[in-house]
Amino acid sequence: MTTNDVKKESIQENIEKAEILIEALPYIQRFNGKVIVIKCGGSLMDDADRMAAIIEDVVLLKVVGFKPIIVHGGGKEISHWIDKTGLETKFVNGLRVTDEKTLEIVEMALAKVNGALVRNIEALGEKAMGVSGKSGSLFKAVKKDSDDESEDLGFVGSIKEVNSKVLRDMLDNDYLPVVYPLAMDDEFNTYNINADDAACAVAKVLKAEKLAFLSDVPGVLVDRDDPDSLISEMYTDEVKQLIEDGKVVGGMIPKLYNCVDAINKGVNRVHILDGRIPHCLLLEFFTDRGSGTAIMNPKEFRYYKQELSRKEKKG
Amino acid sequence: MTTNDVKKESIQENIEKAEILIEALPYIQRFNGKVIVIKCGGSLMDDADRMAAIIEDVVLLKVVGFKPIIVHGGGKEISHWIDKTGLETKFVNGLRVTDEKTLEIVEMALAKVNGALVRNIEALGEKAMGVSGKSGSLFKAVKKDSDDESEDLGFVGSIKEVNSKVLRDMLDNDYLPVVYPLAMDDEFNTYNINADDAACAVAKVLKAEKLAFLSDVPGVLVDRDDPDSLISEMYTDEVKQLIEDGKVVGGMIPKLYNCVDAINKGVNRVHILDGRIPHCLLLEFFTDRGSGTAIMNPKEFRYYKQELSRKEKKG
Amino acid sequence: MTTNDVKKESIQENIEKAEILIEALPYIQRFNGKVIVIKCGGSLMDDADRMAAIIEDVVLLKVVGFKPIIVHGGGKEISHWIDKTGLETKFVNGLRVTDEKTLEIVEMALAKVNGALVRNIEALGEKAMGVSGKSGSLFKAVKKDSDDESEDLGFVGSIKEVNSKVLRDMLDNDYLPVVYPLAMDDEFNTYNINADDAACAVAKVLKAEKLAFLSDVPGVLVDRDDPDSLISEMYTDEVKQLIEDGKVVGGMIPKLYNCVDAINKGVNRVHILDGRIPHCLLLEFFTDRGSGTAIMNPKEFRYYKQELSRKEKKG
Amino acid sequence: MTTNDVKKESIQENIEKAEILIEALPYIQRFNGKVIVIKCGGSLMDDADRMAAIIEDVVLLKVVGFKPIIVHGGGKEISHWIDKTGLETKFVNGLRVTDEKTLEIVEMALAKVNGALVRNIEALGEKAMGVSGKSGSLFKAVKKDSDDESEDLGFVGSIKEVNSKVLRDMLDNDYLPVVYPLAMDDEFNTYNINADDAACAVAKVLKAEKLAFLSDVPGVLVDRDDPDSLISEMYTDEVKQLIEDGKVVGGMIPKLYNCVDAINKGVNRVHILDGRIPHCLLLEFFTDRGSGTAIMNPKEFRYYKQELSRKEKKG
Amino acid sequence: MTTNDVKKESIQENIEKAEILIEALPYIQRFNGKVIVIKCGGSLMDDADRMAAIIEDVVLLKVVGFKPIIVHGGGKEISHWIDKTGLETKFVNGLRVTDEKTLEIVEMALAKVNGALVRNIEALGEKAMGVSGKSGSLFKAVKKDSDDESEDLGFVGSIKEVNSKVLRDMLDNDYLPVVYPLAMDDEFNTYNINADDAACAVAKVLKAEKLAFLSDVPGVLVDRDDPDSLISEMYTDEVKQLIEDGKVVGGMIPKLYNCVDAINKGVNRVHILDGRIPHCLLLEFFTDRGSGTAIMNPKEFRYYKQELSRKEKKG
Amino acid sequence: MTTNDVKKESIQENIEKAEILIEALPYIQRFNGKVIVIKCGGSLMDDADRMAAIIEDVVLLKVVGFKPIIVHGGGKEISHWIDKTGLETKFVNGLRVTDEKTLEIVEMALAKVNGALVRNIEALGEKAMGVSGKSGSLFKAVKKDSDDESEDLGFVGSIKEVNSKVLRDMLDNDYLPVVYPLAMDDEFNTYNINADDAACAVAKVLKAEKLAFLSDVPGVLVDRDDPDSLISEMYTDEVKQLIEDGKVVGGMIPKLYNCVDAINKGVNRVHILDGRIPHCLLLEFFTDRGSGTAIMNPKEFRYYKQELSRKEKKG
Repeated sequence: MTTNDVKKESIQENIEKAEILIEALPYIQRFNGKVIVIKCGGSLMDDADRMAAIIEDVVLLKVVGFKPIIVHGGGKEISHWIDKTGLETKFVNGLRVTDEKTLEIVEMALAKVNGALVRNIEALGEKAMGVSGKSGSLFKAVKKDSDDESEDLGFVGSIKEVNSKVLRDMLDNDYLPVVYPLAMDDEFNTYNINADDAACAVAKVLKAEKLAFLSDVPGVLVDRDDPDSLISEMYTDEVKQLIEDGKVVGGMIPKLYNCVDAINKGVNRVHILDGRIPHCLLLEFFTDRGSGTAIMNPKEFRYYKQELSRKEKKG
Repeated sequence: MTTNDVKKESIQENIEKAEILIEALPYIQRFNGKVIVIKCGGSLMDDADRMAAIIEDVVLLKVVGFKPIIVHGGGKEISHWIDKTGLETKFVNGLRVTDEKTLEIVEMALAKVNGALVRNIEALGEKAMGVSGKSGSLFKAVKKDSDDESEDLGFVGSIKEVNSKVLRDMLDNDYLPVVYPLAMDDEFNTYNINADDAACAVAKVLKAEKLAFLSDVPGVLVDRDDPDSLISEMYTDEVKQLIEDGKVVGGMIPKLYNCVDAINKGVNRVHILDGRIPHCLLLEFFTDRGSGTAIMNPKEFRYYKQELSRKEKKG
Repeated sequence: MTTNDVKKESIQENIEKAEILIEALPYIQRFNGKVIVIKCGGSLMDDADRMAAIIEDVVLLKVVGFKPIIVHGGGKEISHWIDKTGLETKFVNGLRVTDEKTLEIVEMALAKVNGALVRNIEALGEKAMGVSGKSGSLFKAVKKDSDDESEDLGFVGSIKEVNSKVLRDMLDNDYLPVVYPLAMDDEFNTYNINADDAACAVAKVLKAEKLAFLSDVPGVLVDRDDPDSLISEMYTDEVKQLIEDGKVVGGMIPKLYNCVDAINKGVNRVHILDGRIPHCLLLEFFTDRGSGTAIMNPKEFRYYKQELSRKEKKG
Repeated sequence: MTTNDVKKESIQENIEKAEILIEALPYIQRFNGKVIVIKCGGSLMDDADRMAAIIEDVVLLKVVGFKPIIVHGGGKEISHWIDKTGLETKFVNGLRVTDEKTLEIVEMALAKVNGALVRNIEALGEKAMGVSGKSGSLFKAVKKDSDDESEDLGFVGSIKEVNSKVLRDMLDNDYLPVVYPLAMDDEFNTYNINADDAACAVAKVLKAEKLAFLSDVPGVLVDRDDPDSLISEMYTDEVKQLIEDGKVVGGMIPKLYNCVDAINKGVNRVHILDGRIPHCLLLEFFTDRGSGTAIMNPKEFRYYKQELSRKEKKG
Repeated sequence: MTTNDVKKESIQENIEKAEILIEALPYIQRFNGKVIVIKCGGSLMDDADRMAAIIEDVVLLKVVGFKPIIVHGGGKEISHWIDKTGLETKFVNGLRVTDEKTLEIVEMALAKVNGALVRNIEALGEKAMGVSGKSGSLFKAVKKDSDDESEDLGFVGSIKEVNSKVLRDMLDNDYLPVVYPLAMDDEFNTYNINADDAACAVAKVLKAEKLAFLSDVPGVLVDRDDPDSLISEMYTDEVKQLIEDGKVVGGMIPKLYNCVDAINKGVNRVHILDGRIPHCLLLEFFTDRGSGTAIMNPKEFRYYKQELSRKEKKG
Repeated sequence: MTTNDVKKESIQENIEKAEILIEALPYIQRFNGKVIVIKCGGSLMDDADRMAAIIEDVVLLKVVGFKPIIVHGGGKEISHWIDKTGLETKFVNGLRVTDEKTLEIVEMALAKVNGALVRNIEALGEKAMGVSGKSGSLFKAVKKDSDDESEDLGFVGSIKEVNSKVLRDMLDNDYLPVVYPLAMDDEFNTYNINADDAACAVAKVLKAEKLAFLSDVPGVLVDRDDPDSLISEMYTDEVKQLIEDGKVVGGMIPKLYNCVDAINKGVNRVHILDGRIPHCLLLEFFTDRGSGTAIMNPKEFRYYKQELSRKEKKG
C-alpha cells in the first residue's frame, strides 16, 4: 500500500498531456484502417537514433489503427560493402551499373538494413514482416534502359506489376510489412529497383491514404537556398509549374513526378518529410501544422475547406 | 501555395506533443482489444462539461483500440422528476422505496440521461448504442429484500444473470454500449438496479481488463479527512483490513466489496477515480501515475514487478 | 404412464388446426428472411391487451423466419406526462410546438413506451433491442419548417439519412429491433420525428418486403362513412386519383403519400391495417383475405396474377 | 380496385385460424434449428396421398426453422419388383435372404421410392437431397449374422459407423436430406440396412431433438387388441417392464429397443406415430395432445413438469 | 531395424518415376481448383474394369486439386431391365419412347449404375455424392418434341435450367458429385435427359475448365474408317466445316454441337476421349500428347502459342 | 487441324506414366493438408542443380496439397563472404565464434541463399515467402553457453520460443515459407541459430506430419564405412542403442537427438535423406521404398502394420 504524493502541479501537467492525446482524436478516427506507405531512405538509414525515432512513429500509427507499410532503400550500407569486398564500380550518367557481382552486394546490404528495421519494430512490441520484393513475386520488373543506348545499366529494373495480395495478407494478419525493393523479371532474374519507385507502386496498387517520403531534406522549397521558403501544401497542378520554373532540381524532380503519379492513381495525399525532425510523421499526421510538404489532389480542395470551416466552428 | 512560417519554437513544442503520444504507446498496445467497463455516476452526471470531458476520454479509449462499455445511473435527474411530478417518496433505511409510479419515473429519467450520453459520443464521431438492461434480457433480476423484513423496497432488484451476448454483439459490430441499469425478473416485471452492481456484473461476465468507477470522491483515503492520504494502489487482501480498521465508511464499503468481487471473478484491475479531475481516465490508463485508487489481484504482483524492472532497464 | 383418452372428435379438430398451419406454408416460404417494418401507433399504444396481441403476431412472424422491425410512436403517453408536469403547450396549425422542455418529455415518454414493447417481446421468448433513433445515428434529421414561416415548430425534424447498419446488425444478430423516432441534426441537437415517416424511411432504406401501418382505422374506405367500403387492394397509381377525388382526408393523406413513396423506393407492399382486429397482421400475411388495405406496385401485377393462377391449378 | 366484402363472420373465423398459429409459437421457438429425424416406412410408402400429407408436415417443420431428415424404407415396392423380375426369395427365420440379385432389386426399388419423396418435397418449394447411405460413406456396415448359424442372410448389414458430415453439410446448405438405407462394409460391398436402425443411427450421431417413427400402427398399446389403450407418453425405464410383461410383441419390440437406445445416446424424445392420421407430425409437435406414443428420458421429468406449471400459470 | 538393400538400378528406376510426377507439375498447377465435367457413357459403363480405371483417373484429378464432376448414362443396364421386366419398347425415329413404365425402369437402372460409381470412388478413399438431377431441382426440364409431330416421345426432356448451387455446395464441401440425368418439369413430372446434354449443361453453368466425353470411340476421325486419322486438336470454327463436309456422322454430330455450344458459353476446352485406352484422362490432361480429340476456342490460340514457346524455352 | 500420329508404342509408354501417378494416389491422399518441414543444408546449398531438383520436389508436394516449409542454412556461402571481407575467424571447440562482425556476414549470406530459394520456387509458379526468424519474432532465442566456460561463442543462440502464427498465416494464405535461422533474445539482439535446431523447433510447434533433413550423407548407416548398410526405418527407442553402441558419430548424433525430440513432441516421422539422389523427397514420400532413413514412433507400429496388411490385401 503506497500513499500517493503526486503534487498538484504534476497532476496539472498530466492533464495537459491528456489534452494532447485528445487533440489527436479526430486524426486517429479519420485514418483508422487506412493504408499509409512510408518510404525511408537517404542518410536517415545510417543514423540509428533517427531511424529508431521514425520507427516509434510508425509503430504508434499502427497501434492506433492505421495500416503502415515501410519501403526502404539501403543508404550508405551498399557502398560500404562494395568497398569492403573490393568491387569496382562503373557509373553511367551518374547511375551505378549493377552487374551480377554488384547485385549480390545490393541484395545482401538491403537484407541487413531490413533486419535492423524489423528488429526495431519487434522491440516496440509490434509484429514486423521483413521481405524482399521477390517474395510472392511482390514486384515484377522489366530491365531499365539506359538513356545512353550504348551503355547497359545491368540489373536495374522498373516495376511492371505489383502482387498486392502479398501486402494485403500481411496487413490482414496484423503485420507491419517492411519491404526492400528487389524484383524479378519474367525469366526470374533479380533486379534492383529504386526505393522511391517501389514505395510509389505500392501506394498506387493499394490506393493508400497517404504516401510519405522521409529523407534528409526539409521538403519542397520555393527558394532552394532558403530553408524558410518551405511549401507546406501544394496541389498536383502546381507541381508542373514549379518544375517548369526551374525551382526544383536534381532528385526532387523524379520524386515529385512520383507524387503526382501516385495521387492521379488514387493516393489521397503525398508527404515529403524531413526525417531529421524528430517525430516528423506524427507532427504531419496528428497536428494542424505538418513538418514538410504535402501534395494534394485539387479535387480534394472542397473537402479540405469543409474541414477548416468545421474546425473553426468548433474552435 | 502557402509558404511555411512555422517558427522553430513551435516545432519544438510540437515535438514534445509527439513525445507524449509516444509515451502512451505501451499502454495502448497492452490494452488493445480489451474490454473496459466504466461506471459513471453521482453528481458527475449533472455537470454537462465534466460528462463531456469523460466521454472524450472514453471515445479516445475506443478509437485507439480498447472496447469500452459505459454503465450509468441517473444522478439527480431522478429526484428532479419525482419532485416535478409531485410524487411522494418513502424511504426505508435510507433507501428509496420504488413503487410502480416511482419506477416509471426512474425508467424515464434514466432514458433521458442515456440519450444525453449517446449524443455526446455520436458528436465525437463514434457509434453509441444506448439501451436499458431490459433489451435482449441483458439483465435478469430477483427482487431485493429489505434488511427490515417488515418493509418492502418495491421494484428494487439484484442481478441474477447477465446475457453477455447483447454486449458482445455490440462490441463485435463496433458500437460503444451505453447501458442503464433496469432489469426484469422471471415474470418480466421491471426492476431498478444499483448502477455500481450493474457495472460490476458486466465486468465480471465479460472478464473485463478494467472496471472503473467514476464519481465525485478522490478515491480511497487512509485518513478520510485528509485528501492527501489517497491510496494509489492496493491489493484485494488489503481491502478487508481497511474495512475492519474502520478506515472506509458509507457507500465506499459496498463499492469496495464490488471491487474485490470483480477481481476474484476475473477482472484484472478495478479503479476508483475522481471524475472531477479532467481526463482522469487517460491519466489512470496512459501514465505511470494514475489519478485515483487501483485495486489489484495479489497474484498480479509478479507481473507488476516485471513491468517496473523492464521500465527501469529501458529508462 | 398415462392412457390416451383423446376422443376421435378432438383428433378431427386438431387435424383441422394442422391444416391451418399447412395453409400458411406458402406465405412462410415466400417471406422467409424478408424484412417487415411494422409501425405501431395511435390509440393502440394505450391498450395493453391490443398491444400484447399485436406483439404476439410480430413475434410469430420472427419465429417463422421473417425479419420484423417495430417503429412506434408515443400515443397518449406524451400528452399524459406533459399534463402531469404542468407544461403549457402551444399549437401552430394544429401541430404541437416542441420546445426544449417538451422535447424532454417526448424523449422520456417514448422511452417508457419502448420499454413496455421490449418487455412484451422478451416475455414471449424473443430478443428485443429497444433503441431511439439517436443510437448509432440511426436517424439524422433536419429541422422541419412550419408552413407558416413566422412560426417555429421547435425541435420537430425530417429524416435526411438512415444509418441502416444499426438495424442490419441487430437483424444479423437475431434481435427484433424496436425503434422510437428521435433523430439528431448535424449539430447533434435532438429532434422529434413523425413515427409514420420514420417507419417509411426504415422500410425504404432496407428495401423491406412489407411495411405495415397499424392504427385504429379499418384501412382506406371508398366512402369514409361506410366501414363496409374498405378497399382491400389498390395500386399506387390509384392512390393519386383517390386523393384528387377527395375520398381520403386528414392524416390518411400523408400516410398514403408515405405508402406510395415507400413502394417507389423498393418496398414490395404497404399495408394499412386495423390494429383493433385481433391478429390483423397474421390475417393479412398468412391468409388470402387480409384485414385492411394493401397498396401495391402496378409492376407487381403480372407476378400477382401468376400466383393466383398457380393457386387455382393447385386448388 | 376491389371492394372488400368479407363478412364479419368470416373475419371471426380467420381470427380463430390466427390463434391456432399463435398456439404453435412456443413449440416453434423451442425446436428452432433442432434436428428432427423422421422414419417413413411400412404401408404408408404405398399410399401416395398419405405420403404427400406427411411430406407437407415435414416441409412445414423445415420452413418454420426445424432441421428435418427423412430416412425411408422401400415398402411393398421391393416385393413388387422381386415378383416382377421373377426372382425367387428364400426366408430364414422370417427374414428375407438378400443375395446379390436381390440386393440389386432392393437398391433399385429404394432409389425409386427416394425419387418420389424428393419430387414431393421439391413440388412444395423446398430443396431435397436424395441419397443412399453409400454416398460419402454415410453408413458403414458389418454383415449381420443370422440367429441360425447355419444360415446366411446374405447382404444384410448392421451400421457400425455414421459419417455425420454428409448430413450436416446438407443441413448447413439448407437441404432436406432424404436417405435410403444402404451401406458399405470395409471391402466396399453393398448391404441392405433396416430403415428403423438407420433412422436411429442418424438420430444418435446428430443428437437429434426428436426421432419419429411413422408407420401404420396407432402407437404403443397397453392392450394390443384395444386401440383405445394407446400410451401417449412413457419413460425409457417403463419400456423394459412393458416388454417383460409381454404387452408388446413382434416388430414393436426391436423398435422400442431402438427408441431406448436413441434416448440413452442423447436423442431428446422418440415418437411412434400413426402415419394414417393426417398431419400426425404437426399434431404431435405443435399441440399439447399428440397422436401417438412419446418415449422420454426420465431425467427429462423435471423439465417437463416445469413446462406444465408454466403453462398453467399462463393459462 | 531393417537394412536397406535397394539396388542402385531400382533407385534409378524410382528416380525416373519421380520425374514423371514432376512432368505433371505444370498441369496440376494450371488446373488447380478448376471444375472438370466428365461424362461417362456408352459401353464403358458395362465393363467394370474400364470403369474402375476411369474412376482412378477421376479420383487422382480430385486428389491433386481439381474439382471433377461425373455425369453418367445407363449404358446397357436400361435395356437389360426393360427386357427383364418384359416391357415392350416402341421406337420413334430411332428414339425409345419413354412412357411411365419405361421411365420407372430408367430411373431404377440409372440409380443402380450410380451406386456402382459411388462405390468405386469411396473405395479409393474420396467422398462421392450420388444424386439424380431431381435432387435440389438440379435440372429443370421441358418435354422434348419429336421431329415427327404425330408421335410422342413420352417423358424425354430438354434441360431448361440448372440449379448450380446443388453442385457448388457439393464441391465446396469436398465431395465428388456423381449425377444421373433425370429432371422435373414445372409440374414436377420426371423426365429422362440425354447424358451428353446434361454434362454439357453442367459444364456451361459452372463455366468448367474442361468437359470430357468418355466413350468407346477413338475421338474425331478425318476418315471415319481409318483410326489413325484421329484429329487431336481442332477449333470450334473447324467443327462446322467438318460436319458440312460430311466427315462426321451419327451420334458424333450432336456431340460436336454440344462441344461448340459449351465452348461458346465459357467452357475452356472440350475433350472427346477413348475410354478404352487406360488412363485416357490422365494422358489427355497431364501429358503433351493426349489420347483423343480436343476442341478449343479460337481465341485460345494466342495463349496456346505462348505455352508452346515457353516450353521450348525451358526445354 | 493436326493429324494425330502418336504411335501405339508411345501410347503404351504414356499409359505407364499414368500408372505411376496412380501409384502416388494413396500417399497424396494421406498427407493432404499436412505440414512437412524440410531442412536444406550442407553442401547441397552450393550446387544450383541439386537445389533446383529439391525445390521441384517441394513445389510438387505443395501443388498436390501438402503444406511444406523450408528451413535452410547458409552452406559455404557464409565462409565465402567471411573470407571475402577479410574477417578473421576464431574457433572454440570446433565452433565458429560469432562476434558482431561475423553475425553481419551470417545475416547477409543467409539472406542471399534465401533469395535464391525464393527465386527457384517462384520460377516454378508457386508463391514463396522468404523471411528470417526475426520477422514476427518467429524465433526467440537465449544465448548458447560454450562447453568451455572461459570461452564465449558470441551471438550463437538456442531457440526458446517459436511464434507459430507467422508460419500458420503464411500457410493459410497459400505461401511456401522459406525461413533462415536467425532469432532475437529478450533484449532484441540478433543470434545465429543452428538450422537443424530451427527446423526441428518448427516441426514440433506445428506438430508436423514429417520433418525431413536433406544433406549430403546417405542416411544412418549400421557400419559407417559401408554405404550399403543404410538403415531404412528405425524406431526412436533404437536410436539410443545405436548411439550407445558408438555406431553413429559426429554431427549425426545431435541430428538424431533432434529426430527423437521431434517425434516425442508430436511429429509423425522424421526422415534423414540423401539430397544428392535426385527427387529423394518424392521417392521417400510417394513410393514404398524411400531413399534414406525414417525415424518413427514405436506407437506408430500398429498403424504401420495395418498399412502393410492393407497393401498386401490389395496387392
